[in-house]
This record gives sequence, C-alpha cells and structure tokens, in this order.
Amino acid sequence: MKPAENLENARHTLAHLLAAAVLELYPDTKPTIGPAIENGFYYDFEFSSPLSENDLEKIEEKMREILKTWKEFSHQEVSETEAKKIYKDNPYKRELVDEIATKGEKITLYTVGEFTDLCRGGHVAHPVKDIDSKSFKLDRIAGAYWRGSEKNKMLTRIYGLAFASKKELEEYLKQREEAEKRDHRKLGKQLELFTFSDLVGKGLPLWLPKGTIVKNQVEALAHEMENKYGYEQVSTPHVGKEELYLTSGHLPYYKDSMYPAMVMDDGTYYLKAMNCPHHHIIYSSKPRSYRDLPVRLAEYGTVYRNELSGTLNGLLRVRSLQMNDAHIYCRQDQIEEELSNVIKLTQEYYDLFGLKDYWFRLSLWSPDHKEKYINEPENWNFSQDSIRKLLKKLGVKFVEVENEAAFYGPKIDVQFKSVIGREETMSTIQLDFLAKERFKLSYMDKDAKENNNVYVIHRAPLSTHERFIAFLIEHYAGAFPLWLSPVQVKVLPIGEGHHAFAEKVAGTLKSEGIRAEFDNSNESLGKKVRNAKVEKVPYWLVIGDKEVEAEKVTLESRDHGQIGQVSLDELISKFKTEILNKK
Amino acid sequence: MKPAENLENARHTLAHLLAAAVLELYPDTKPTIGPAIENGFYYDFEFSSPLSENDLEKIEEKMREILKTWKEFSHQEVSETEAKKIYKDNPYKRELVDEIATKGEKITLYTVGEFTDLCRGGHVAHPVKDIDSKSFKLDRIAGAYWRGSEKNKMLTRIYGLAFASKKELEEYLKQREEAEKRDHRKLGKQLELFTFSDLVGKGLPLWLPKGTIVKNQVEALAHEMENKYGYEQVSTPHVGKEELYLTSGHLPYYKDSMYPAMVMDDGTYYLKAMNCPHHHIIYSSKPRSYRDLPVRLAEYGTVYRNELSGTLNGLLRVRSLQMNDAHIYCRQDQIEEELSNVIKLTQEYYDLFGLKDYWFRLSLWSPDHKEKYINEPENWNFSQDSIRKLLKKLGVKFVEVENEAAFYGPKIDVQFKSVIGREETMSTIQLDFLAKERFKLSYMDKDAKENNNVYVIHRAPLSTHERFIAFLIEHYAGAFPLWLSPVQVKVLPIGEGHHAFAEKVAGTLKSEGIRAEFDNSNESLGKKVRNAKVEKVPYWLVIGDKEVEAEKVTLESRDHGQIGQVSLDELISKFKTEILNKK
Repeated sequence: MKPAENLENARHTLAHLLAAAVLELYPDTKPTIGPAIENGFYYDFEFSSPLSENDLEKIEEKMREILKTWKEFSHQEVSETEAKKIYKDNPYKRELVDEIATKGEKITLYTVGEFTDLCRGGHVAHPVKDIDSKSFKLDRIAGAYWRGSEKNKMLTRIYGLAFASKKELEEYLKQREEAEKRDHRKLGKQLELFTFSDLVGKGLPLWLPKGTIVKNQVEALAHEMENKYGYEQVSTPHVGKEELYLTSGHLPYYKDSMYPAMVMDDGTYYLKAMNCPHHHIIYSSKPRSYRDLPVRLAEYGTVYRNELSGTLNGLLRVRSLQMNDAHIYCRQDQIEEELSNVIKLTQEYYDLFGLKDYWFRLSLWSPDHKEKYINEPENWNFSQDSIRKLLKKLGVKFVEVENEAAFYGPKIDVQFKSVIGREETMSTIQLDFLAKERFKLSYMDKDAKENNNVYVIHRAPLSTHERFIAFLIEHYAGAFPLWLSPVQVKVLPIGEGHHAFAEKVAGTLKSEGIRAEFDNSNESLGKKVRNAKVEKVPYWLVIGDKEVEAEKVTLESRDHGQIGQVSLDELISKFKTEILNKK
Repeated sequence: MKPAENLENARHTLAHLLAAAVLELYPDTKPTIGPAIENGFYYDFEFSSPLSENDLEKIEEKMREILKTWKEFSHQEVSETEAKKIYKDNPYKRELVDEIATKGEKITLYTVGEFTDLCRGGHVAHPVKDIDSKSFKLDRIAGAYWRGSEKNKMLTRIYGLAFASKKELEEYLKQREEAEKRDHRKLGKQLELFTFSDLVGKGLPLWLPKGTIVKNQVEALAHEMENKYGYEQVSTPHVGKEELYLTSGHLPYYKDSMYPAMVMDDGTYYLKAMNCPHHHIIYSSKPRSYRDLPVRLAEYGTVYRNELSGTLNGLLRVRSLQMNDAHIYCRQDQIEEELSNVIKLTQEYYDLFGLKDYWFRLSLWSPDHKEKYINEPENWNFSQDSIRKLLKKLGVKFVEVENEAAFYGPKIDVQFKSVIGREETMSTIQLDFLAKERFKLSYMDKDAKENNNVYVIHRAPLSTHERFIAFLIEHYAGAFPLWLSPVQVKVLPIGEGHHAFAEKVAGTLKSEGIRAEFDNSNESLGKKVRNAKVEKVPYWLVIGDKEVEAEKVTLESRDHGQIGQVSLDELISKFKTEILNKK
C-alpha cells in the first residue's frame, strides 16, 4: 500500500473511531457519515443535546482508549431488510441503505472491536498497530446540514486532524498557528492597512492611510528599480473599447472574466482586465526605429476582473488588481539580454525581501498539442532554446514543464516557499509573439524597411499590489522593516510636562521625511509602549525629565529592545541609513 | 446705442461691405447670407470658380475702397414679386424671400453706396464715419453648406474679424496667435506628452512617458504639500455599487453623467464619477474620537464621466479625470482653520506656478430659492458668515455671488487670468453639511456622546491632471521649468569620438536622479541643438575635443543661451538647486 493511500485509510479509520467514542459517551447519538478529508477526517452526528468544543478532549481520550482494543477489521454483507432493522432508530443510515440498494450495490457492515458501521471499506487492517495514537487530534466542531442541503436538519460535525506521525501533526499545527498569526486579513484589520465595504462592493479593497503608505513604498521601489533598468512609466485609462479587445483577442474568449459591457454614445466599452492592449497602442503611437528598441513601458495599472462574488477572499482573490506591469518591445536579437535583465531585476527584489528559497519554472509548448498554441514552430523552438540556454548561463535553479506555456509564447514563473512552507507563484515573465500580428507592431529596420518581428515581454515581478502586500504582511507577520512601516517611530512622552519636547521631536523627524507619530493620549507610558507594540511600530522614543534635560531621546526597538539615549541628529542619521538600505 | 450693440451692427455692416467688394471683383458670384458673429462676421457665396485665401487681401482692399463711399444706409420695403424679380438669378435670395413672405414679414432692401442687399436691418448709420477701416480684417475661407444642410450645395464662406478699434483687433490677433502657439493639443503631440486612440476610446488620454513624468512631478508636489498640511493618502477602487450612489444621492440625479451600469452576480456597479463616497466609507471604517479630527483624506483618484462624444476636446473635456482630490472631516469649531489652511495651500500652489492675477469667488445660497439647497438655514448662515470673515481676515481678493452655491453648502472657486488673458476657474473648495446625514458620519465627543455634526470640505486646488497639465502646457508654452521637464538636459557629442565621454556624463547625471538624455544620433551638432530646442529641453551640454580634454562640459540654456564650460560637479549642484527651488 502506498503511504498516501495508507494515510487516507488511517483517516477513514479514525472517523470510525470517533463515532465509536461518541456512541460510548453519548449512547443516544445518531451517527451519519464520516469520511477522510485533507489533513484529517470528520463525522456528522445528531446529538440529543448540544456539544461544545470543551467536550472534544474527553472524546479524544475515549478514542485513544478504544483504539487499544481495535485489533482487526472484519466485514459482512447484509440484506436491505437486515440493514434497516439494525438502523431502525437511525433515519440517516436507513436513507443511506436505501440509496445503496437503489444503485444495486452491496450493503456491507465493518466491525472492529465492539463497533460496527455501515461502510464501503477502505481502512487500515490493524488499527492498534497501524495508527500512532499521538498522530491525531480532534480539532473543532461545526454545524453541517444533512447531505449539505439547508432543507435538511442541521447536524454536528466533529473535525479531526490526522497525519502519518506525531511529528507531522505537530508540524502541521505549528504551520497553521503561524499562518493564523500571519493571516493578512486579521493583520490588515489590526494594522489598519485596508478595508472592504458592502456599499463599495465585493473584492474591492479600499487602502487605508497606512496601507497606502506600504503600497506607495512598494511602488516607489518599483519605479526606482525600473528607472535603473531603463523602463519608462506610462499611464493609461481603466476602460477600453470593444474594438480594442477584439483586436487583442481577449474578446470573445475572455469575456466572462471581464466586467460587463458599458454601451456609450460612440460604442461599447469595457473595464480593462489587462494593461497590455493599452501599452501596445502607446508603442504604436509613433514610428519606431531599430535604434529605439527595446522600448520598456511600465505602469502600476489597475485592472478589473469579474470573479464570482462567492470566491473572493481578502486581498488574495479580488476584483480590482493593481499590477506591477510592464511590456518590453524588442528585436529578436535583444530577447536574451532583455529576459536576462528581467530575471536579474526579479532576483534583486527577492534578495531585498530576503526570499532565498525560490526557483524558476519554464513552461513550454507541446508539439503534440499544437491547437493550444500559436502556430509558429520556429519561434517556439528558437525562444524556448534561448530561454533554456539563458537560465543555464545565469546558473539559476529551474524546472521545465511541457504543455504549460501561454497561447502566445513560453513563460517563466518564479516559484517560492513562503515563510509558512507553502509553495507559491509570485512573479511571471512571458514572451509573446502574437501581439506583433494583432497590433501590427513594427519598427524601421537598419535598411529602412518595416520589420514586423517585434517580440513583447510581459512581466510582473512584484505581482499585484493586492497579492504582494498580502505576501508582505504574512512574510513579516505585520512587523514591516523600517522603510515599509506606515509609522516608523512613535514619540511617547511620559507625562504632560514632556509633551512640548516630544511634539518638537516628532516635528523635526517629520520634516526630515521620517514617518513619526506623536502619542498625545492620556495613557500611561506602559500602555503607550504596549500600543506601539500592537501596532508593530519598529521604533519608539521615550521622553521624560532626563531626556528633556539632556535634549536627547531614549530609543527602543521592536526587534532589538532598549537601545539607549541618543541625540536627535544621531537618530535621524541612523534612521536614514536604515531606510536607505531597506533593512 | 450701447457699445456692444454698436459693434454688432458694425460687424453686420462689414458683412454687407464684404459682399459689395466680392460682387465688384467677381460679378457673377451669388451672395447668400452674411451675419455678425463673435469676433467679426462672415458671408456665404456661390463663386463661379474656386477662391483661395490669397484672394482675401485683394477683397479686403476693395472693402476699404468701397467703405469710403458708404455715407449712409437707406432702406425700402418691396413686394414678394418685386424682390423675386430683383433676385431672378439668385435662387438663394429667392428662397429667403419665400421664407420671409410665408412668415408674413416685411421684405426690406438695404442700400448704402451702390450696394443693395435683402436684409432685416441692424447696421451702423454712417459706415464711413462709424467704422475704423483698420479695425477689421478678412481672416479665412471655409466650405459651408447652404442652410447648414449637407443635402444642399457647398458654398464658400469668408470669415472676417472686426473690433471696435485697430488696437482691439491687434490685441485679439496677438492673443489668438499666442493661444495657437500654446495650444495644449498641438504641444502635447509635439512634445510627446499624451495621445488618444480610437481603439481605446474617445476622451480617454493615454499618457506617454514624457507626459507621465510631468504628471508624476505634479503628483509628487501635491503629496509633498499635503504631507506638510497633515493629509493622509488613501487609495480606492474605480467602481462602486449602486447602493453607494443611492446613499450619496448621486443616483438617480447624476446618472446621465455616469458611465452605464454593470450588472454583476452580487449587484449593480458603476464606474465612480467622484471620489467622495469612497472617502466617506473610509472615514466611517473605524470609530473616530473628537481628538482624531480633522481627518484629511487625499487621493489623486481617477473618476469617469459620460460626456457626449461630440463635446470632447483634448485634455480640456475628457471622460477620465484624475482629480487632485481630498476630503477634510472636521468639527464645527475647526472649519475656519481648515478652510484657512486650504486657502493657504492653494496660494502656495499659485505662487509656485507664478500665477499672480487670481481671486476668490464665494458662491452663496439664496434664501429666495430654498428648494435648490439643503434646508439648514442656520448652517448656511453660520458657514457663509465664517467664510466671509475668513476671506477678509486673510486679506485676499474676493467677490460674492448669490444663488450659486452647491446643493450641500457654500463654495469658494479660485478664478484666474490665464497667460492669454482668458478668465478661468482652476480650484474649488466646498463646504458640505449633507454628507454627515447621508453617510452617518460621526465622532465621539469629549463627553463620550456620539456627535453627528461632521463637516466635510471637498477641495481640488490642482483641479484634475488633465485640466492642470493642459494649463501648464499653455502657461509655459511647453517650455516647462527644470523640475517639470520630462528631459532636463540633453548631452550632445560633436562627433563619434566624443560619444564615450558624453555617455559617461549622461550616466552620471542619471545616477544623480537628473533626467538626462544622450543624443547618439548621426546628426550634426547644429541639428542636435535644433532638436533639443524643438523638444523645449531646458539645458543641453555640448561635448567636443576641448570638453573631453578638460573633463568638463559646455552648458547651454533654453532660456539664457550659452553659459559656458562647467565641471560635472558644478553642473549637478546647479541642477539640484534649481530643481529643489522648482524654478
């Protein structure tokens, strides 16, 4: 038996064990169904009186006690009549029996120890030997309608976690705890970064002042890096005409993912779901010579996508996405250098944010599925070969996957292991040899002939603001480094008498471009410090008699504790260096 | 006779004079109609052979010649039959006679000198005395359908300009020439600031790289100033639900000005036509205490307005507008200080852009038109009185206009005389005492009671990017000051041998954050300098043998001519100072 199948069977067995324990403790309970699920199992019961989460420990103990007696499963086939007689007091099981009989399937009862359940099988053979009694844990209870329909009775579902070993269970619990602590929705609220509103609509984040600072800092970083790499910023409207999206080919294929059409006096308009068509228009807005290429157009453009309202989730699944977008228009002989620079730029970002565990995934076309791809075999072969060569030359870790390319060309995704161990895709780089046809992109060649062989690179190393800031929140558990922190330092006077100096200090810091906040509340110093910690502010300054007298401040750090008395000049210089180094 | 009426009559008289001159020079021409218009007059003719603009001078001379003989108008009434006999060769005049007769009006012929025309009257009595022969000028010719219908014959329209005096004509011509030279559409294209595309749609500017730099500089200025004045930036989506605009009251009243509705799976959405409702939601997203107020939320938000496609005009009438928006939420006792600071902020902007000729216009409600205004007389009286007192205290120039306020409160517009003498409104400041009701805005009072008396100030001192950059282009005739210039300095090597040093210089400047461009073309130095001038670049550096040897550059200025040899360090320091001072 494969380990995965084994784990599945163990989880299913544990569902039986849960039912056995519940029936021993609460004999008038009606068990219904209990499958294995991801990370564990559950069982739905009709209890005669309400159960609370406090009862789970007792049930868990009972499970461990019973497990000791569960040596081996046996099963027997029974007739419909027999089965219904056995379950005369349990309408749920009788309904299941009916169903099995209607399908003409066998009705089987599985027994282990003193417990028997209606079941199709799929258990570990010898529970007491095969299941580590420390490898599972009851997790929580929830209401669940019988057969998932709200027309039916609400049952009580008990969830359990189960893994192959105690160690794996502990790892999972730790990771989950960490994920909860770092949950971007929870921290986003606590740190006042963003909010949602039913009046504004689903999946549409409103960035609060502090979140806007984080967003603006990321954007400033992108601009700085893009300037260094020779990009030019552009700015395009959030709507475009139907004709634009027919030209690009997004209509009609992508229509369901776009916001609905708006009919105006001069035609039909759509909210843009991508920035590329607008950028192609800018590329084509004037004649280009071979000397002008590459043209690199960047825009942190907001696009709108019609996700189903039920699927929306915090910043991770939204309807408005502000993309770290750019399109590079280049000649064939420039592809390698341009891709190389995009990869280097991406690596600079990953280094900056301390992401070490990442690799590239090169998605290729498949000559066996030609219908899925633009029919330019020589371009596919040429571009895939050069990307492969390039990745080897750069010495980066990469994998190749066939038949995963975009319709218009190969793509390179950047995968990374998040701080809680989840594999994610953050950045994407795509080569496009379709846009040149659709938008008639061209340049004037050395010999004054029009050349249509313009390659487009789509790239978004920082993903969207929504996804990237959700990542940053999780990555730093909300404790942003100084340069990203909405409030960089709080100035905390001990008493009323220190307010004047404290306010002066805050003012001086602000005039130096440091995001300082003066805490003028009537709270005690202890409470002020606690507030600063809850807000995850990287530094705070305590100001009392000694500080006023010495014209200095006492500096404390979120990450390094008490630092001591420093002069304002020292402080400003320290902060500026730290901000500049983005540490 | 009032001067204005007199001018109208003079213009009409000149239309007669134009017809007289044309008929003398081209006897087989058929005259049709010739009214006075703004700035002058026109007359439509059917010529037997095409006329060119070169012929206008000759006609104008003839007009002056004939004018000398035009002592006094006389007129006579004629019958329909008589009139038709007179105009037996002119079907246009016969059609006019038919029309007058059908209406039962009198048919009159006006005669002066040797010229007679079918006319209703409205002339100066003694043309030779009443009209200065230097106060008019033929302007241009254009095609015009008879009666404005494309089903009719195309006639030739001759336009003339006419004013009360030679001086006024010259002033008008100068102003018009200046306006043409400064036309933001022409310069926007020449300087590659923005473009439009039929595929993207009407009234939707796409900001090209150079225009995006100007826009970003203006935005950076706004952020800097807003930080100084205690604003916080926020960022909100471009759409909102129907319920949001029903709450704000924009629906249904403002519906025609909004883009059409988009029906999604969870309700109906609209593109936002204003930012305030989104900001109100942010204000209400957490409890506010009296200590937290004022809350100043700023956003350069893009709004969308459904202007008729036929009315769109360059950047001045668009469908997407990025507003220099902010909303200040304050207590009643804070209104004066907040308004005062908004006015000071506005004055700082006007000073920075060298606008001296501006004044404030205070728009008040009218107790006689109460139906037009929110019914809070005590708030109207209180707020109008305090604004008036404030404007007096600040010692600014202001006028008051009754019955021009917004529905929700009084407003202060800032009027200015543009560089070509046109009066315009740039900035607006509005006090709003309706939002608090509609959005249940409130704060916790000193005595821990909820207080709903939240005043909202709407303000947009820099208008929208579209309007403001159109203004800047006109104001500077495209020759932006250094800090706003998309390219701040061009580096011009004389020959191939100077490219390496020139490129190094450009690189050094760029790494210092100066927007330098290296001209690597094969053109002569003369042509390179001419290009820099056409692009209105503020500075360029000439690099030849002497410069390479001395490791210096020769600096020339768009505005101050040749400056001479300077070291790179001197140059960088000069540029940085100039940029910092925004001169």
